[in-house]
Amino acid sequence: MRIMVLRLGHRLPRDERVTTHVCLTSRAFGAEGVIYSGQKDNSLEASVKRISDNWGGKFSIDYEAKPIARIEKMKKDGWAVAHLTMYGMPLPEKVGEIAGKGRILVVVGAEKVPAEVYQLADFNIAIGNQPHSEIAALAITLDRLQGGKELERAFQSNFGGASISLEPAEKGKKIRKA
Amino acid sequence: MRIMVLRLGHRLPRDERVTTHVCLTSRAFGAEGVIYSGQKDNSLEASVKRISDNWGGKFSIDYEAKPIARIEKMKKDGWAVAHLTMYGMPLPEKVGEIAGKGRILVVVGAEKVPAEVYQLADFNIAIGNQPHSEIAALAITLDRLQGGKELERAFQSNFGGASISLEPAEKGKKIRKA
Repeated sequence: MRIMVLRLGHRLPRDERVTTHVCLTSRAFGAEGVIYSGQKDNSLEASVKRISDNWGGKFSIDYEAKPIARIEKMKKDGWAVAHLTMYGMPLPEKVGEIAGKGRILVVVGAEKVPAEVYQLADFNIAIGNQPHSEIAALAITLDRLQGGKELERAFQSNFGGASISLEPAEKGKKIRKA
Repeated sequence: MRIMVLRLGHRLPRDERVTTHVCLTSRAFGAEGVIYSGQKDNSLEASVKRISDNWGGKFSIDYEAKPIARIEKMKKDGWAVAHLTMYGMPLPEKVGEIAGKGRILVVVGAEKVPAEVYQLADFNIAIGNQPHSEIAALAITLDRLQGGKELERAFQSNFGGASISLEPAEKGKKIRKA
């Protein structure tokens, strides 16, 4: 399974930290990269690249000025599009079908998502039908799609080439430096 | 099972949106309330109360100037403390034991968490040993503790007295107003 994340409508300075959380959650839970639209943000890109360099593995961040065209192109290339929205269908009712796709583009919006996205999406998916957080919705979706394997110790081997890594600890911190 | 969330070290304006996401995620996924420490934030409290009033159910938000003393008091009152940190033990290895507790206080930090919290915690729990997001960590923890029931349609009946609610939709938005 390949997973990419598209973050729509990044706004500065308002979304600085939330989009950073979207990127780091994507990376930590096994997506191969993030595409973001809205305002171009060099500081965001540098920050995500710095963390990927230090903590290992491969993870891409890529700006897209025309997200609708990008979604259309990725659909043509065989990606299934799962748009996360509190208006959508409950995740447990759809997760099996989505996980059956080989390539999944998970789309998360900021304040207002264009109506075209709902139409283009193969799946409009709710992680509960209550207002909460696109970060929370993304995390649970990635967890469910992968059957929880991204939380296992063994998954940390995906983050090869790290200059820093952690050993799980009951109390305190066990830090390994390369 | 009763779940409360403690958000440590709220800073203004830096954490405004992230702490809001922590609160809304807690509410949407079945915690009964949030306690937050750091800087008092009337706007945060008003925003969370407004959403709870509109979207139904019961959810509390409460400021605590002395979070360490509060953790100690809650432990005496029988709450098990699960501190979420990338330095901790993998969630899948501990979730059964934590879920066996009747009352669970889930603690999420901001930038730097005092060493005392690691010591006071009954469980230091990692949602993956990579840097990501306390919102993501909280969401997955609440999901796993409750066996996913908070994502089911039936769970929405917990949000009684709402003036607005949603009907799951394949495309677009189905909004009900009371």
